[in-house]
Amino acid sequence: MTDRESTNFTLSCPLPLPAEAQILLAHGGGGRLMHRLIEDVFLPAFGTAGERHDGAVLEIGGVKLAFTTDAYVVRPLVFPGGDIGTLAVNGTVNDLAMCGATPRYLSAAFVLEEGVSTALLARIAAGMARAAAAAGVALVTGDTKVVDRGKGDGIYIATAGIGVVAHDVTIAPSRVRPGDAVLVNGDLGRHGIAIMSAREGLAFETTIESDCMPLNGPVAALLDAGVAVHCLRDCTRGGLASTLVEIAEATRLHIRLDERAVPVREEVRGACELLGLDPLYVANEGRFAAVVAPQDADRALAILRAQPGCEDAARIGHVSADDPGLVTMISAIGAARLVDMLSGEQLPRIC
Amino acid sequence: MTDRESTNFTLSCPLPLPAEAQILLAHGGGGRLMHRLIEDVFLPAFGTAGERHDGAVLEIGGVKLAFTTDAYVVRPLVFPGGDIGTLAVNGTVNDLAMCGATPRYLSAAFVLEEGVSTALLARIAAGMARAAAAAGVALVTGDTKVVDRGKGDGIYIATAGIGVVAHDVTIAPSRVRPGDAVLVNGDLGRHGIAIMSAREGLAFETTIESDCMPLNGPVAALLDAGVAVHCLRDCTRGGLASTLVEIAEATRLHIRLDERAVPVREEVRGACELLGLDPLYVANEGRFAAVVAPQDADRALAILRAQPGCEDAARIGHVSADDPGLVTMISAIGAARLVDMLSGEQLPRIC
Repeated sequence: MTDRESTNFTLSCPLPLPAEAQILLAHGGGGRLMHRLIEDVFLPAFGTAGERHDGAVLEIGGVKLAFTTDAYVVRPLVFPGGDIGTLAVNGTVNDLAMCGATPRYLSAAFVLEEGVSTALLARIAAGMARAAAAAGVALVTGDTKVVDRGKGDGIYIATAGIGVVAHDVTIAPSRVRPGDAVLVNGDLGRHGIAIMSAREGLAFETTIESDCMPLNGPVAALLDAGVAVHCLRDCTRGGLASTLVEIAEATRLHIRLDERAVPVREEVRGACELLGLDPLYVANEGRFAAVVAPQDADRALAILRAQPGCEDAARIGHVSADDPGLVTMISAIGAARLVDMLSGEQLPRIC
Repeated sequence: MTDRESTNFTLSCPLPLPAEAQILLAHGGGGRLMHRLIEDVFLPAFGTAGERHDGAVLEIGGVKLAFTTDAYVVRPLVFPGGDIGTLAVNGTVNDLAMCGATPRYLSAAFVLEEGVSTALLARIAAGMARAAAAAGVALVTGDTKVVDRGKGDGIYIATAGIGVVAHDVTIAPSRVRPGDAVLVNGDLGRHGIAIMSAREGLAFETTIESDCMPLNGPVAALLDAGVAVHCLRDCTRGGLASTLVEIAEATRLHIRLDERAVPVREEVRGACELLGLDPLYVANEGRFAAVVAPQDADRALAILRAQPGCEDAARIGHVSADDPGLVTMISAIGAARLVDMLSGEQLPRIC
């Protein structure tokens, strides 16, 4: 090989080595490192597969379908307000709902660690069945693999889901416009704090329960009422902050938040202060941000607040055209601060 | 609670505790224990979810779709003839093909262990993209989770797939009739032996490569030619034997095999003898059994043999009405023996 050929080879390499030679826990955290992994490893290989959306929207035989998948590795397997099974069902239901789809069918693939209790597995499977029934979806196909003792962590579950995009609307960052209102469907941070409390054996005055719930009902209520929903994104890993930065970066618009309007329960705020966490970055499993046309904002808020589990829905900010790609927040004392995506890993294995 | 009430409770318990209190490696082996896990844990919870088929066939908006999922935990991650990524793509493509569907879209959920090499991940992702292109499917959505060092085994992948059932045929055990011919699309046992050789550092005269390949091409060739295909099942975990016992039990018919007709390469037969394995139970990743109408058998065989990777396709037996639910095999010396499903675990983590 000549020098020239060698140079050409280097220049045309389709898979440049990413900056980190090893996978870190933060690569699973929903923040900057995870996005870099997608850009450096998955996008070069799969093209669209790593697209920054909660699912893919496909057209098959004239039917518009949404298709999504998620792996669940939450620790502990059972926590206040849910378990890995309810999370695996609701998480995939919610990703479909965020595409504006009606979730219909779910698959579940289990990776079991040798030695895990069969009774625990049965309990988790029963919980999944209840969660599926509550969300109106059918678990139709599955798989089970077993790994050696010490090579897993009890139970991992990967669910995939198919939904039908019935409404003739496109819900995507490209539809967001300056002036749009930003809503959230309830108080933030409970899931992450519930997991951390369970994992670290922390006891607060009140037991903080995960907000884990299906979001297809609230989304359907908005769409059925004809609300001009421009963008939806669930606030899971990386919390509300990372979700909004994703939207701001994708739209090249500026999202302005009002800190006083962001609903956080007193006990969650207290736990966050104690633990040095920012509730804006704590994971949720039943919360989403909705960007809607300004004239529909009040109506959308009323519709959301009528949904079970969404009583604390709030209008937390708006979209503006200046400072493209940024999220800023006006604090209670009137100071503005920049809100960035989660850059490391606040709390691993949250979902 | 009275005795009477207590009795009622026991009788109506929807989730009887299975015989094994803990999950064993053999629960992932594709044999008896896995079927018991499905019957004891998953069927009571999910109803149809654990159905003994490679996927679910659904109708959405007048379109007939197949939907399937599999988790992959193969060890080692890279082996002669493939890696966990090509396996994850081909395995799900093949499950869709076994439903008579044209595979279209795949999802991939990764569970990465902290510390795994990013270069290895990129290599595996690139292999998945190549396998997807070869099978004519698009990887459209994905997810990545990271678990702590020591809580995984490098990389686990769960893929799910959507296919379109275009042909107006039902491929199911219910269509199998006495007299039908049983075909297999090539030589058996290479995948399992390739994995075992790689894992145990065994060196045979020839490197035995996995038979891992997409099966949608061969299946489409049969269906496009109008062959009366009654049942298809890929011979993965548990090997050809477990596959055929599943069909025999589901149809309540008898499958009679001719041992001399079952294609096994000399080097695989030698390795099996050395290791005390029966090639009938060794896993394959590019092999399937097809039950076809007797008058179409010769034509089907010729069609299969014209497909790349299926040159050794063979007619290995037939279906009869006596001894319902059994599989028997006439040996080279004329003795008949009963072929049962894999009862324990011949070799774990094969896929």
